[in-house]
Amino acid sequence: MPEHADRTAGPGTGGPPGPQPDGPSDAELTALDAHWRAANYLAAGQIYLLSNPLLAVPLEPEHIKPRLLGHWGTSPGLNLVHTHLNRVVKARGLNAVCIWGPGHGGPAVLANAWLDGSYGEVYPDVSRDADGMERLFRQFSFPGGVPSHVAPETPGSLHEGGELGYSLAHAYGAALDNPDLLVACVVGDGEAETGPLAASWHANKFLDPVHDGAVLPVLHLNGYKIANPTVLARLPEAELDKLLRGYGHDPVHVTGDDPMEVHRALARAMDRALDHIATAQRVAREEGVTGRPHWPLIVLRTPKGWTGPREVDGVPVEGTWRSHQVPLAGVRDNPAHLRQLEAWLRSYRPEELFDEEGRPRPEVLAHVPEGGRRLGANPHANGGLFTRSLPVPPLEHYAVPVDKPGAALHEPTRVLGGLLAQIMADTAGSRNFRVVGPDETASNRLDALYAATGKAWQAEELPTDEHLAHDGRVMEVLSEHLCQGWLEGYTLTGRHGLFSCYEAFVHIVDSMVNQHIKWLRTARTLPWRRPVPSLNYLLTSHVWRQDHNGFSHQDPGFVDHVLNKSPEVVRVYLPPDANTLLCVADHVLRSRDYVNVVVAGKQPCFDWLGLEAARAHCARGAGVWEWAGTETGDRPPDAVLACAGDVPTQEVLAAADLLRHELPGLALRVVNVVDMTRLLPQEEHPHGMPDQEYDALFTPDRPVVFAYHGYPWLVHRLAYRRAGHANLHVRGYKEAGTTTTPFDMVVRNDLDRYRLVMDVIDRVPGLGVRAASVRQAMADARTRHHAWIREHGVDMPEVAEWSWRG
Amino acid sequence: MPEHADRTAGPGTGGPPGPQPDGPSDAELTALDAHWRAANYLAAGQIYLLSNPLLAVPLEPEHIKPRLLGHWGTSPGLNLVHTHLNRVVKARGLNAVCIWGPGHGGPAVLANAWLDGSYGEVYPDVSRDADGMERLFRQFSFPGGVPSHVAPETPGSLHEGGELGYSLAHAYGAALDNPDLLVACVVGDGEAETGPLAASWHANKFLDPVHDGAVLPVLHLNGYKIANPTVLARLPEAELDKLLRGYGHDPVHVTGDDPMEVHRALARAMDRALDHIATAQRVAREEGVTGRPHWPLIVLRTPKGWTGPREVDGVPVEGTWRSHQVPLAGVRDNPAHLRQLEAWLRSYRPEELFDEEGRPRPEVLAHVPEGGRRLGANPHANGGLFTRSLPVPPLEHYAVPVDKPGAALHEPTRVLGGLLAQIMADTAGSRNFRVVGPDETASNRLDALYAATGKAWQAEELPTDEHLAHDGRVMEVLSEHLCQGWLEGYTLTGRHGLFSCYEAFVHIVDSMVNQHIKWLRTARTLPWRRPVPSLNYLLTSHVWRQDHNGFSHQDPGFVDHVLNKSPEVVRVYLPPDANTLLCVADHVLRSRDYVNVVVAGKQPCFDWLGLEAARAHCARGAGVWEWAGTETGDRPPDAVLACAGDVPTQEVLAAADLLRHELPGLALRVVNVVDMTRLLPQEEHPHGMPDQEYDALFTPDRPVVFAYHGYPWLVHRLAYRRAGHANLHVRGYKEAGTTTTPFDMVVRNDLDRYRLVMDVIDRVPGLGVRAASVRQAMADARTRHHAWIREHGVDMPEVAEWSWRG
Ligand SMILES: Cc1ncc(C[n+]2csc(CCOP(=O)(O)OP(=O)(O)O)c2C)c(N)n1
Ligand SMILES: Cc1ncc(C[n+]2csc(CCOP(=O)(O)OP(=O)(O)O)c2C)c(N)n1
Ligand SMILES: [Mg+2]
Ligand SMILES: [Mg+2]
Repeated sequence: MPEHADRTAGPGTGGPPGPQPDGPSDAELTALDAHWRAANYLAAGQIYLLSNPLLAVPLEPEHIKPRLLGHWGTSPGLNLVHTHLNRVVKARGLNAVCIWGPGHGGPAVLANAWLDGSYGEVYPDVSRDADGMERLFRQFSFPGGVPSHVAPETPGSLHEGGELGYSLAHAYGAALDNPDLLVACVVGDGEAETGPLAASWHANKFLDPVHDGAVLPVLHLNGYKIANPTVLARLPEAELDKLLRGYGHDPVHVTGDDPMEVHRALARAMDRALDHIATAQRVAREEGVTGRPHWPLIVLRTPKGWTGPREVDGVPVEGTWRSHQVPLAGVRDNPAHLRQLEAWLRSYRPEELFDEEGRPRPEVLAHVPEGGRRLGANPHANGGLFTRSLPVPPLEHYAVPVDKPGAALHEPTRVLGGLLAQIMADTAGSRNFRVVGPDETASNRLDALYAATGKAWQAEELPTDEHLAHDGRVMEVLSEHLCQGWLEGYTLTGRHGLFSCYEAFVHIVDSMVNQHIKWLRTARTLPWRRPVPSLNYLLTSHVWRQDHNGFSHQDPGFVDHVLNKSPEVVRVYLPPDANTLLCVADHVLRSRDYVNVVVAGKQPCFDWLGLEAARAHCARGAGVWEWAGTETGDRPPDAVLACAGDVPTQEVLAAADLLRHELPGLALRVVNVVDMTRLLPQEEHPHGMPDQEYDALFTPDRPVVFAYHGYPWLVHRLAYRRAGHANLHVRGYKEAGTTTTPFDMVVRNDLDRYRLVMDVIDRVPGLGVRAASVRQAMADARTRHHAWIREHGVDMPEVAEWSWRG
Repeated sequence: MPEHADRTAGPGTGGPPGPQPDGPSDAELTALDAHWRAANYLAAGQIYLLSNPLLAVPLEPEHIKPRLLGHWGTSPGLNLVHTHLNRVVKARGLNAVCIWGPGHGGPAVLANAWLDGSYGEVYPDVSRDADGMERLFRQFSFPGGVPSHVAPETPGSLHEGGELGYSLAHAYGAALDNPDLLVACVVGDGEAETGPLAASWHANKFLDPVHDGAVLPVLHLNGYKIANPTVLARLPEAELDKLLRGYGHDPVHVTGDDPMEVHRALARAMDRALDHIATAQRVAREEGVTGRPHWPLIVLRTPKGWTGPREVDGVPVEGTWRSHQVPLAGVRDNPAHLRQLEAWLRSYRPEELFDEEGRPRPEVLAHVPEGGRRLGANPHANGGLFTRSLPVPPLEHYAVPVDKPGAALHEPTRVLGGLLAQIMADTAGSRNFRVVGPDETASNRLDALYAATGKAWQAEELPTDEHLAHDGRVMEVLSEHLCQGWLEGYTLTGRHGLFSCYEAFVHIVDSMVNQHIKWLRTARTLPWRRPVPSLNYLLTSHVWRQDHNGFSHQDPGFVDHVLNKSPEVVRVYLPPDANTLLCVADHVLRSRDYVNVVVAGKQPCFDWLGLEAARAHCARGAGVWEWAGTETGDRPPDAVLACAGDVPTQEVLAAADLLRHELPGLALRVVNVVDMTRLLPQEEHPHGMPDQEYDALFTPDRPVVFAYHGYPWLVHRLAYRRAGHANLHVRGYKEAGTTTTPFDMVVRNDLDRYRLVMDVIDRVPGLGVRAASVRQAMADARTRHHAWIREHGVDMPEVAEWSWRG
């Protein structure tokens, strides 16, 4: 689509066109510059000053912080973008948030939140006056204070500063289904080198101009990262321009190091970009134009550490990587540095910016928007304010009937697909539910969704295509990073979603989920942040059924990864069949502020529990399956067979089946665990079981043979404090993977029914001698299996056709 | 740099120009087509056939595999590229390997290795005749057979098929410092959506045309991934072209679905690309031209599943996503499908391709290169063949002198920097050592390297730049994925390297290291694969010293992640000071086939051990520090204070110091662990300690207070089988992170000296009552600390100025 800057913009995210077609007047530019100077002053003040915030007296070493921390280099750029966003938000009445990619520029974002008053509303003692300014400075990166990076504590933020690369994906996630929202996004030129960011440029192929808001990327070419130039800043401008057009954008380049000229150019660029957005939305919304817009993008090329010290100790600092953190390091001990700092701070002419009480003067605030339109106060950045519960329909409609355990087979994720499809249909109006996945939604048996919605797609369509739709709410892109980033942005702005992923490849987002868990952990402690929908994973195509794809697809370690993290936030479920998966899904889709990991199979799996039994079992999280055991009630069991996960559950039941028939005198208990955190001590996780309950369930003194879905030592790590731990024997995946048959996967990892029977025989005191021939039959079955699969390529009939005898 | 296709190509990777400037003759194209048909036939055969490989009799259900597995869709494209690479390799005498991004196309790569004879050389029973063909077919994705994806078992491969996104980074890694090597790289259009792949395009800014080989990307736009169109295939060609030029490439587009036309166009494109490469290298190498070449790239747009079934059951398959895996699913039961399969296979006219004995006819092999020039046999894909030991200099030159433990401080990574710089200098000729990092080499105190080499950089340079160099062997890019991918490609081709990374952010490559560990685990079992240099991590800026950057930068979980993986491959070291770091580095840089994780600090750290003591301690991996304890030798210790990691070691020694002075009668043992896997049982890891040794070191019955660098439960997971496990009390990082002082980080996580003293008092039987006032003093110190840091912003002098009293 061509750029329509000449046409009158209609309503929509871009708002009405700026009042002055030639850009702001000189007086306005002067006011913008005052705001920018004020923000720069406040950013530098946070890095350096303990007291004397207004420089009422000459600067002395005791006014300086003992440890100088924070990132100056990026701050003037962030301040500039914030200043100019203020103007357009106010002038056009926009509803906007901004994602600050270089989130290490905490001083800048905090400075702006203090200036627009939103900071003081959340933290009243950091008032918009000299006292508050002193507190703002002192608390920055100070024990008991606030982080040096943009964080949950920062009003207006929904993007953790720190690990770089996710800003643009978050921006798109926030814009989805928010048609009236503008999401500005500053992308650092260093950050742009990361994989997740590089992949995110193509997110514009998934953004619907009708139902979604707009994303306005501002690529900030300050030329450097920590200690190096950046790739994008060192491309010839024509090459960079091609790249950005290749990404589907219409770039507007703003370059300079003269403040007033840059103010003028950036103001014009913003107006042009917003007119362009408004037009693109209007033609799509009102004229039904369906072409993919070439959305605008601003390339802002200004010096790193702009307005800071030009040189320090004879080497250039402004405009180089040396300005990245603290440009003057010796201020407390080196009088020359101290004088240089004072000159730097005074260069902003603070007396023109703040009155005697330290309040920003009216000119500084002239372009700052009001109320919830301030970037520091936009409610979308506190998404819980918008959260509406999902209409989860009654599970009865989707549950599979179970007259007798283990008689019929269903694909659990396909059963879940029905439920998800209904939710998708029921949110057609509210548009607050999305399912994301790396091209595996159908492969994961969730294709019922396509009856309710399409797959988001704004690129070219061909007649053979199926289920693509401009307004689709299933999102498929071969980037786990993008899936995760979208869903984070979507849920942090108060909407719901599910990420379905191959179990092995979800490790791709290990570090992203880390950061999200950190965000939620901190956000939960902030009373002003409202709970947001949980981030839900459905991990399927799991380790036991990647026999055909082989070793590279076999890895159950994501559960281990998340269970290292804040227990307030993480939840892990391994439903053993279709109905338990429904119950778990119902629970996680209603929950808030968690990261829920659900591991469930897509292959046909026996139905063990009817809906009511499944509900009760999931509510318990772990429980005895009386119908599977042989306890009589008058004495403790001889052994406990425990299981977690669908395949381990099947093997445990097959082992129980063998034991019931081969060793009828044995008192056996079968325990299934759905919620892994129940194994943890009560003090270590909100779901942790009291010791009494654990001892009752697993016994304090009987052998427990535990068949676990993942790495076996995880169960030990969870249960090592329990009385019965010495009797706990865990089988699980121990990296004995390859391309083979499904049953061979469990045999190779000693998780198979025959091995489990042997484990019980070996561990029940006195049983070994009595059951020697049973044990031998088990070993023989394993040998037979080995030869059979090599000849036939499929599992033995006794395994493939097994079902629960009861 | 313009493209110089008109100039005569000189020597170098591209080789001399093709003999025919107009491209190959019709006869040659016919031969190429025969090869392609043969490869397609063999690919389909692997997916379907158990027997009757040459279709000597009409196809019957019993000839068909019971489980149909494998990926057809990508295979014709891979076969096409392989066929044409054969031609140019042979015609130009090139030294080339190919990275197959869509490595799920195992059938194609195996087919080609069988055709060029390299398969039969490695696996003699899979001979190049009818018997061998039957074995080739049968073993594919069959129990006891070979994986369905490209894997270590595949001759000529150095890139695991499976998790998509790393092909191009691997290609660049292989090309570095191999000036005569051509690395072709097929990039799937689905794969291109991933973050790591998207970031990899800019790797050409780091490739030196003088000292490095060339990478020739072939972007394979077959239009689809598993179930969706791909973004790049659905861009207007002009937009895609801009994108690729923006990536710094000169694209050659080859589009078609008529085989002979595509053969002609692809042959010409290859010639053009290779001429271009040859010229670029010649002008750089001989004429000293330093401009960054705009390297060629081929865009190959052909149908997915090309030459396979056009329609199945009335829906289009060829040219759609439906051809991705097995296009005809019902062949065993559905006679129509069986007939369709037979017609499909016969459409390749196997009788023209193979003689009666099943040997490929001469025409088929006309363009296949010989010996080590075959893509299936190029020794670079078996990099151990080229591995030369690194010249690690004597540690004496770099070790810090230690007269007395804990008297002086050094930054361990800075000390290591000296050693690395010497290795870098001593490999200036062999060019077989690189250090990679995400813009943190200097921040991690390894800047001594810049005296020996520069930072690789081919983009624009400015006068203020420092240490940039076309031929630099430090590689800094803000992409952990690219760092990891480069180093994987570099080490798998037999060269050495180190990846220095912030500890928290190394989780970004969790899934990449997974796949690399899998590769090494399998490669070690293949006698024909020679050992390659280990992949070495230096994790610094670790959890305890990210007090200033805050919670987002605090995560020690990478160790947990790797310790879940194959014990043959993984090694984890936590050297407690500068000299132990040197000893560990010496060891890991000489090792082969491992993934070594070394966690070490960059902040000033006490020197505990002199070089000789450090050597002995590292050789043990764990040992008593007699000088720190108070055992007398005539009785077991009352308690053991154990530690692993630099900060925990300091806290344990400070606790020991306090206990020595406050409770002089206590018999205390101090144990330090450098090699975490020593804690594992002997049966579970090659470094695991026998129980006797463990019991002797940690005692079977005394309280052990263990201060560990990372998540405390890791130590339990390693040691839960030990006799003394019930007495093991572990302190570590428990997600109590924030922005604060260094000592407050340990206090918040209960790892501080005062807490450790309290732990000892609480656990030594009878000590509690006697030592009540000492305990109280410890608690008071913690309280004092809390108030002090909030007032002063730095740690209490008694902590900040502490040193070992001895
Ligand atoms: C994934 C990741 N790797 C490394 C770092 C360490 N780091 C912090 S800031 C920075 C440079 C950022 O450069 P840029 O994005 O250009 O930001 P700016 O120049 O605006 O500061 C780096 C590498 C990080 N934060 N995240
Ligand atoms: C990181 C990752 N995510 C998901 C998958 C599952 N997957 C296997 S093949 C495939 C599609 C690949 O498409 P493309 O790269 O275009 O290859 P081709 O069309 O040549 O088969 C996907 C998504 C994977 N292998 N790796
Ligand atoms: Mg930058
Ligand atoms: Mg494709």
